[in-house]
Amino acid sequence: MVRSEAGVPEAGVLEVGALVDHHCHSVVAAELADDALAGLLTESDRPPAPGCSPFDSALGLAVRRWCPPALGLPVHAPAADYLARRRELGAAEATRRLLAAAGLDTCLVDTGLTAAAGRELLPLTELAEAAGAVVREVVRLEAVAESVTAGAEDWPRAVGEALAVAATGAVAVKSVLAYRHGLAVPAERPARPAVVAAAGAWLRGGRGRLADPVLLHHLLWTAVDVCAELGLPLQLHTGFGDPDLTLHRADPSLLTDFVRAAEPSGVPLVLLHGYPYHRQAAWLAQAFPTVYTDLGLTASYTGPRVAAVLGEMLELAPFGKLLFSTDAYGLPELFVAGAAQFRYGLGMLLSDWQAGGACSAPDAQRLARLVAADNARRLYALQ
Amino acid sequence: MVRSEAGVPEAGVLEVGALVDHHCHSVVAAELADDALAGLLTESDRPPAPGCSPFDSALGLAVRRWCPPALGLPVHAPAADYLARRRELGAAEATRRLLAAAGLDTCLVDTGLTAAAGRELLPLTELAEAAGAVVREVVRLEAVAESVTAGAEDWPRAVGEALAVAATGAVAVKSVLAYRHGLAVPAERPARPAVVAAAGAWLRGGRGRLADPVLLHHLLWTAVDVCAELGLPLQLHTGFGDPDLTLHRADPSLLTDFVRAAEPSGVPLVLLHGYPYHRQAAWLAQAFPTVYTDLGLTASYTGPRVAAVLGEMLELAPFGKLLFSTDAYGLPELFVAGAAQFRYGLGMLLSDWQAGGACSAPDAQRLARLVAADNARRLYALQ
Amino acid sequence: MVRSEAGVPEAGVLEVGALVDHHCHSVVAAELADDALAGLLTESDRPPAPGCSPFDSALGLAVRRWCPPALGLPVHAPAADYLARRRELGAAEATRRLLAAAGLDTCLVDTGLTAAAGRELLPLTELAEAAGAVVREVVRLEAVAESVTAGAEDWPRAVGEALAVAATGAVAVKSVLAYRHGLAVPAERPARPAVVAAAGAWLRGGRGRLADPVLLHHLLWTAVDVCAELGLPLQLHTGFGDPDLTLHRADPSLLTDFVRAAEPSGVPLVLLHGYPYHRQAAWLAQAFPTVYTDLGLTASYTGPRVAAVLGEMLELAPFGKLLFSTDAYGLPELFVAGAAQFRYGLGMLLSDWQAGGACSAPDAQRLARLVAADNARRLYALQ
Repeated sequence: MVRSEAGVPEAGVLEVGALVDHHCHSVVAAELADDALAGLLTESDRPPAPGCSPFDSALGLAVRRWCPPALGLPVHAPAADYLARRRELGAAEATRRLLAAAGLDTCLVDTGLTAAAGRELLPLTELAEAAGAVVREVVRLEAVAESVTAGAEDWPRAVGEALAVAATGAVAVKSVLAYRHGLAVPAERPARPAVVAAAGAWLRGGRGRLADPVLLHHLLWTAVDVCAELGLPLQLHTGFGDPDLTLHRADPSLLTDFVRAAEPSGVPLVLLHGYPYHRQAAWLAQAFPTVYTDLGLTASYTGPRVAAVLGEMLELAPFGKLLFSTDAYGLPELFVAGAAQFRYGLGMLLSDWQAGGACSAPDAQRLARLVAADNARRLYALQ
Repeated sequence: MVRSEAGVPEAGVLEVGALVDHHCHSVVAAELADDALAGLLTESDRPPAPGCSPFDSALGLAVRRWCPPALGLPVHAPAADYLARRRELGAAEATRRLLAAAGLDTCLVDTGLTAAAGRELLPLTELAEAAGAVVREVVRLEAVAESVTAGAEDWPRAVGEALAVAATGAVAVKSVLAYRHGLAVPAERPARPAVVAAAGAWLRGGRGRLADPVLLHHLLWTAVDVCAELGLPLQLHTGFGDPDLTLHRADPSLLTDFVRAAEPSGVPLVLLHGYPYHRQAAWLAQAFPTVYTDLGLTASYTGPRVAAVLGEMLELAPFGKLLFSTDAYGLPELFVAGAAQFRYGLGMLLSDWQAGGACSAPDAQRLARLVAADNARRLYALQ
Repeated sequence: MVRSEAGVPEAGVLEVGALVDHHCHSVVAAELADDALAGLLTESDRPPAPGCSPFDSALGLAVRRWCPPALGLPVHAPAADYLARRRELGAAEATRRLLAAAGLDTCLVDTGLTAAAGRELLPLTELAEAAGAVVREVVRLEAVAESVTAGAEDWPRAVGEALAVAATGAVAVKSVLAYRHGLAVPAERPARPAVVAAAGAWLRGGRGRLADPVLLHHLLWTAVDVCAELGLPLQLHTGFGDPDLTLHRADPSLLTDFVRAAEPSGVPLVLLHGYPYHRQAAWLAQAFPTVYTDLGLTASYTGPRVAAVLGEMLELAPFGKLLFSTDAYGLPELFVAGAAQFRYGLGMLLSDWQAGGACSAPDAQRLARLVAADNARRLYALQ
């Protein structure tokens, strides 16, 4: 709910309603040192530059806007005051309060990451309880593949079987190919001999991080097959992320040949984040019935600019193809900020549209409900 | 004219004046099934995804904002009501009313497409009569070339002659190279032997859709020669379009080597649409005297966001180099929406600039007249 | 200071404070013909297209908004009146008035260009006196290299020595690699034999403009070494510029492999301009501690849109990593417009953020001081 500083709903700002967060991660409930906590407020995995703190960013402003009230502090409380209050309450209590304040209805959680800042993430049952939300699992493709122990000859088949097992009961499969090799995926499936040879090389190299393009592309097609079989969507990271990624290789437009090739399978492809290529993602969602898109962590990371960026996304994205997510990871603050930024940003944007005569009140309400929850319920077959 | 919901001009919003639509297509005047009509409100040529309708989009909102009054319905009438009223009036009468409501002064019509949704487009004389507008022809380069019946040896010369014949009396030539191979055109003309060989292969393959890069680049240079001879501008599709196109290959910045190579010919190159690379197109228009640009279908497709997108275009585009167009195709609604969106968007933008002290009232009026009509009149030597 | 048309500070608009211009050039104080002066208001080095004047642009509006009062004319005075008044005062007096009106505290001047429109630029001491500003030198890498007279075998070492001499006492080194070959720099330093061979070819070719990629990449690494030794940042042109540049090759994301490879050196890399890839530059500044970014000439060139573009930059750029600059070159008007556009744009943006509840007043004040001056003082170790 959009609230003024005094805590009452702002007059004239549209209410977005229940939220289905279709892409997020679990959180650390243990105590974190101030630096470790701040380190989860940036895409960088390096120490900050001289004179810089991750709180001095658009995301930092968003966290300081929306989170302090959940811990009994005024909005915009200084970072030091916020961190002190969080320690005073204890991480467990702060986490409980923050997750409850996020007000999420349903969370689809990528279980491919199991720790943040070196601390374990909450198991899904505990996350569900603390958040008061329905929690469902999204299986991370590359993590499943890296855990397969078959030999090279058997590897192509074994990863398919492992993925089918892992994805049974899950609501989607997710690929982080964008981080590993980028999104320029050829239209053709890699040939079996090439996959076996690449698997052999990877196995001989010690089964480290999967980054070979032949293996990655084989995995992607394996995911298409498994998703088609199980009736699941396939999520793909696109756009910005941590320094492991090369930004222009994560432009979702590079996926176009793959999108066309995978179209006959009918598997929905969900382009996560996209920023700063979110207009490209929106075009793909308009052009191809199988493509969906979201704003993901962009809504939190762009802070005061969320309504403008949401506006850019809605220029071409069909209203039935855009989904809300927080991409929260590690910190419960990111659930609060993600949800509040989205409610506030979409509320402001649609109120402006209405005030400017661009749409009617029922149009705005319908669009909000689609993006906030209904598109995700339909796409992931949630109740 | 920008009008409030009650139909009177909005106070304080700048009047844009007469419109020259320098890039559009003709329309279907026959009855269309609801699905076929809706299918002309999206760049997709596929059936909509489950739960989706092309009306649920920024373009859908624009159509429902500007068109219902022309058929005697209130603004934002639901899509079902609008379609019912259109059927009640009959397609011919609805088309007449809508084309008249668009209020266009002059239309430069690309005649390369002759049907939409499987129905014939209105001949130019009938379009002119219904719209009450002067209509002039723009010749589509690839369509002319595909109709040439010469043998391979003769093909290079024959396409030049056919284009010269077709373009005589027309106001411009248009290329859809962006759809066929993308805009990464080398600086050098393809050598004659390579063109003859490629023409031979194309002829042996049954003279289908021209997609060979050697032939496409030969055509582009042929168009430069013919345009130089006849004193015509050359329009190029850039940016988003239907699923046939790969978006990043339609970035107008990829044309830079060609722009430099064609500069001595003096032929104006008009970059259509450009979105989401419209800032790149605007830079080209600033850097190179021969380059012009437009917003085209972007103004309709981005609906409530038109003023923001026009603002982005005007960041670098010289005011004497940006042109209005609707890129309407198939539906008369797209003429209404295209014209109204542009009037409204530019009016709002320039009113804001004035209110914020960024320009004087005469500056705003002059800019509006340049973009709406005067730049096109100068560029295409219209009266 | 943001002033209303009547010359008084606008109520409610945040005061930005002292400005450190970390990237600019000197100006011509001699009389310039009207065409030559207008020619410095565009990135084009060609004559304007028919019917076009560089004053008819967003930059032209900015110049006509901020400069006429410094010469005793009203804001938005027509270009002809402004030019007449400038001639009446004489170029020397107009230059003095304009530089004083810019109100800059410190200017870091790229001395790689020594003339504009065929006239000599003011020496730094005279620029400092007229502007009432501290002036420090930024050494242009490619200009230093082009002046080295060593033979091929000795060239790799000699350019390093020449750069070390030139950069001693300067505050930074600047590269214009984006213009010469683009920013796709490999992660590996070029091997010495390849550099010697390329240097030999360049010397035999008459020591013209350095455009060989092997030599350019060797120079870039030489700059990293010299900057590491002297404790200086390395500035890199990115994004739009004159027609010599191919825009998509100037996307700062293309630098990512080089950024990673240079990270161990600790040398700060300052991405200048960036537009229209400023969001990509901002991501690099967030992901990598060594990367900084600015808006540069974009603030002037985008005229009425400056606040929106600054907003885009601040979506991902850490507040401690964004720097103000004018990139003024040739015309004192560009110092006035650059400074005023930045003060006005950032003031408006932050006032809006505050009014919308996105940040507190102290947050806005602190952000403004960081970007306007404090980040540059810290980065370049200025007093």
